Amino acid sequence: MSYLVDFDDLPPIDVWGERVRARALDGENCTIALVELAPDAPVPEHRHANEQMGTVLHGSITFTIDDETRTLTRGGTWRIPSDHPHHATAGPDGALVIDIFAPARHDWDDLPHLAPRPVPWPGR
Amino acid sequence: MSYLVDFDDLPPIDVWGERVRARALDGENCTIALVELAPDAPVPEHRHANEQMGTVLHGSITFTIDDETRTLTRGGTWRIPSDHPHHATAGPDGALVIDIFAPARHDWDDLPHLAPRPVPWPGR
Repeated sequence: MSYLVDFDDLPPIDVWGERVRARALDGENCTIALVELAPDAPVPEHRHANEQMGTVLHGSITFTIDDETRTLTRGGTWRIPSDHPHHATAGPDGALVIDIFAPARHDWDDLPHLAPRPVPWPGR
Repeated sequence: MSYLVDFDDLPPIDVWGERVRARALDGENCTIALVELAPDAPVPEHRHANEQMGTVLHGSITFTIDDETRTLTRGGTWRIPSDHPHHATAGPDGALVIDIFAPARHDWDDLPHLAPRPVPWPGR
């Protein structure tokens, strides 16, 4: 596999229904994902062994990790230690975010993969 | 430390001189960094044990990993296995990229940290 690919060419995965859609690139020890959230899309409370961090590229998202809650816009970040409960809700204009995981999210391999399509960058 | 911080509030680190500047957030097992590259800024060939992946947010960058070379724009990605040699050059308008590393880049802790300042998002 090439070392240099475009997110546009990766199959979207509906991680939390079609309103929270990720394009994911797996490495050996980590995953980087470009995640589209529809307006007001909810990510229900959950937890996983994979450490997670990420940042907002466009739009906004309100994140809760343990007992801390904040609404984040471009450049806002999250850091979720292994197995800590977290949930989130996209803002009224939705959000485009980067999520990273260590170790890699191989559990996503079992989710349906859609046909590749261009990333809906704002203004595209 | 808060789980929810802004890249604007993280101290920039001059990773390859002042023309390749990173704001880095460390987790337990990985690092996510927002990296600004000045126009035509070079990242000399190097290698590290940390696996690296990343993507372009703005501008362009030409990456070489092993013998593969490509110029990437928004949504272009790289995946650099542990200890593989790689180098890069920013395009004529520079680049703003996300880099992730596993394990975390604790070697960056020893580099000088500048005073925090706003991320130079295009159009800001």
